[in-house]
Amino acid sequence: MLHFDERAALMLLATLIEPGDAELDDLISQHGPVEAVDRIWSGEVGDRLRRITAPAVATGTSIRVRIEAIQSATDTCGARVIIPGDTEWPPHLHDLDRLDLDGEPHLRPPRCLWVRGNRNLAAVSERAVTITGSRATTEYGKHLADDLAADLSEADWTVVTGGGLGIDRAAATGAMARDGATVAVLAAGVDARYPQPTRSLLDLVAERGLLISEWPPGASAMRHRFLLRGRVLAALTAGTVVVEAAQRSAALSQVRYAVALGRTLMFTPGPVTSAQSVGVHLLARKGWGARLVTSARDVLDDLADDAGSRPIVRQRVGFEELPEPQQRLVEVLPRGYRIDTGRLAAAAGCPVEDANEALNALRVAGWVESIDGRWKLSTSPRRT
Amino acid sequence: MLHFDERAALMLLATLIEPGDAELDDLISQHGPVEAVDRIWSGEVGDRLRRITAPAVATGTSIRVRIEAIQSATDTCGARVIIPGDTEWPPHLHDLDRLDLDGEPHLRPPRCLWVRGNRNLAAVSERAVTITGSRATTEYGKHLADDLAADLSEADWTVVTGGGLGIDRAAATGAMARDGATVAVLAAGVDARYPQPTRSLLDLVAERGLLISEWPPGASAMRHRFLLRGRVLAALTAGTVVVEAAQRSAALSQVRYAVALGRTLMFTPGPVTSAQSVGVHLLARKGWGARLVTSARDVLDDLADDAGSRPIVRQRVGFEELPEPQQRLVEVLPRGYRIDTGRLAAAAGCPVEDANEALNALRVAGWVESIDGRWKLSTSPRRT
Repeated sequence: MLHFDERAALMLLATLIEPGDAELDDLISQHGPVEAVDRIWSGEVGDRLRRITAPAVATGTSIRVRIEAIQSATDTCGARVIIPGDTEWPPHLHDLDRLDLDGEPHLRPPRCLWVRGNRNLAAVSERAVTITGSRATTEYGKHLADDLAADLSEADWTVVTGGGLGIDRAAATGAMARDGATVAVLAAGVDARYPQPTRSLLDLVAERGLLISEWPPGASAMRHRFLLRGRVLAALTAGTVVVEAAQRSAALSQVRYAVALGRTLMFTPGPVTSAQSVGVHLLARKGWGARLVTSARDVLDDLADDAGSRPIVRQRVGFEELPEPQQRLVEVLPRGYRIDTGRLAAAAGCPVEDANEALNALRVAGWVESIDGRWKLSTSPRRT
Repeated sequence: MLHFDERAALMLLATLIEPGDAELDDLISQHGPVEAVDRIWSGEVGDRLRRITAPAVATGTSIRVRIEAIQSATDTCGARVIIPGDTEWPPHLHDLDRLDLDGEPHLRPPRCLWVRGNRNLAAVSERAVTITGSRATTEYGKHLADDLAADLSEADWTVVTGGGLGIDRAAATGAMARDGATVAVLAAGVDARYPQPTRSLLDLVAERGLLISEWPPGASAMRHRFLLRGRVLAALTAGTVVVEAAQRSAALSQVRYAVALGRTLMFTPGPVTSAQSVGVHLLARKGWGARLVTSARDVLDDLADDAGSRPIVRQRVGFEELPEPQQRLVEVLPRGYRIDTGRLAAAAGCPVEDANEALNALRVAGWVESIDGRWKLSTSPRRT
C-alpha cells in the first residue's frame, strides 16, 4: 500500500481526468480519492474511465513519481492545492452539487483547486461579484468594467474575473487600483504560461489577489475548459455582471450557470448601435431575470435584494437556536484545524454516539465540516 | 329650453373645467352633458364646481354664443370633435375608467376630443405604439426614435407621440417618412399655436396623420395638462417605448399610467455614461416590468407576448365566420376610399336597410369604419 494522502490523490487525478466527470466523482465519493487512484492503476474501473486513464498508466511511471512531479510543479509556481473540507475551500462551491441545466449532463463541483497568491480564497469569496464580458471590447466597456470593479473594491467586495483580455482585464485592473482583492479563475494552470500582456496581468493578480484553477500547472486553456471554468466563476460569487458581449460571446454561455444556481445576474446596458452590447441586450431579453445595473451601487442593491430570497445559499441556523449538545460541541471545536469525534465527545462531555449524531446535524446546518472523520468549524457563511 | 346637443355641451364644458374632473364626470353621467350645462348656468351644482364655473357664467355671455364661438374656433382650424359613442372614439380609452394609481385621485377618461386630420382615430389607434422621451435628446436618441418609428410604420403600426421636440419629433418624422399614420396627442389646442419648429411639425402631422387634444382650440399647454395628457398617450396604444430620458424627465411620470393600465412598457437602453439615458435606466430598475428593446422587431415581439394576456384589445371575427350578407359587403367594399350605404347595397345586391344593419354589425366587429354615413374597410387589426 502506497502512502499518499487525499490531497495528493486529488492532484494526481486532476492530471488524468477533466473536472466535472460524474463517473470519477462517483468513484471518489464511494471509495475516497486514494483508493480511486489505486483502482485506476489496477484497472478496476469502468471501461470509460479505463480508456481515459490507460495512456497515463501504460507509461509505467509510478504513482509516486507522478505525485512528486505535480507537487514539484505546484511548488515551482508558488501555488498550493486546496480540497473540499479545507478552511480555505469556498463553501458556495458546494451549490454546484445541486446545479441542474436542462438537457445537459450534470457537472460536478471542482475536486481540488490550485491557488496562487497570499489571500484566503474562502475569505475573499465571501463577498464577491463576478465581472465578465467580451475579450474584444470598446473604450466604453473597459471604462465601465474598471469603474464598477474599483467601486466594488472600495465597498470591500472581491471582484472575480476569468483573467482574460478585454472586460476581464479592465475589471481586475480597476479592483487592484483600489487595493481590492481580486480573483482570476483560469481555464489553464495557475503558472499562467500565457502570452503577454495577459501574463503580466496575471502575475499582478497573483501578487495582490489570487489565481485559481481546477487544472494543474502546465495545463493549457482549451475550449471545453472555458465552459467548465464558467461554472466556477458563477458558483464562487453572489452574482455575475456582464459588461459587454457581442452577439455570440462565450461570456453568455457562462451566465447560464449563474441563472441555474440562483445567483443574481446583472448587465450594464450600452448603445443599441454598439456590436459589443448586442449580446448584453439579448441577455436582457431572455427572460432570465437579468437586471440592468449602471453602477456598483446598483449591483450591491440587487445583491442585497436577492440575498433574502436566494434558496441555494445555505442559511446557517443561529447559535442560540441550536439544541444544547450541539451548542456545546460548537464551543469546544477549535478554529482552523480538525479534531476527531472521540476527542470532541470527551471535550463536550457527552457519549461518542450522541456527539456523532449532533455533529452530523451541525454539518447539515452548515456549522461544521468533516473530512476523514475529523471535524472543524465551517468558515462563516455569506453575510446577508 | 335651449337646443344644443351632447357634443356641443361637452365642447362647452371643456372650455370651463379641466379633463379628469371626477365631480363634473359624475354630474354628466347622472344627468347627461346638456343638463349638466344647464345646471352649471343655473348654479345648481356643488360649491366646488360653482366656484370653478362662476367667472364664465358671470360674464353674461349666453350658452348659445359660447357654443357658437367654440364651434367656430373648431371649424377655423379644420378640426372636428368626437365623443364617446362615435365610431371614431378609440375603444381603448374606456380602459381609463378602470385606471387606479396608488394614492392619487381617480382621473376619468376624456369627455371629448378635438381631432385634426383626415384619418380615423379609432382605426389608426387599433395597432398603435407610443414613443416618448426627453425634449433634450442626443443624436443617438433621435436616431433610435426615428428608426423605431420608421420600422413600426413599415409594419403598419401607428406611432403616437406627444408632438413635442426631441424624441417626439424624431419619432413623428420617422413615421411620416414611411407614410405611416402618426398621432400627436397635445397638451394644448389642436390649432397648434406653438412656436416654430414645433408648429411646422404639427402642421405636417395634421396633414398626414392626426392631432388630438382634450382642450379646445386656443388652449395653451400648462404643466398640469402635460400630466393629464399622459393618461391619453398611455391608454390610446398597446404599449409605450421610452427612448431617452434624463433623471427627472416628465416622460417618466407619463409611463406610470401605462403601467397602471397594463400596457406593455418598453425602453431602449443607452450608454450608462449618457445623462439622457439615466432616466431610462432608472425606469428599468423600478420593478415595473419595463422591457429592454433594441428594435421595432423587439417592440412587436413584446406586444405580441402581452396581447394574449391583455383583455382590452378587440379581436376581429374571421371572414369565414361572418354571416352571408356581411361577407358580400366586405367583398364589394373598396380599399382606401369611402362609399355610401346606397351604392354599397346596390353593389352587394341587397336592400338598403339590410345593408345598413349588416354594416353596423361589421363596424362593431371591427371590419369597417364609417364617417358621415360613408363606409370603408378598417385597416387590418392587431395581428396576434
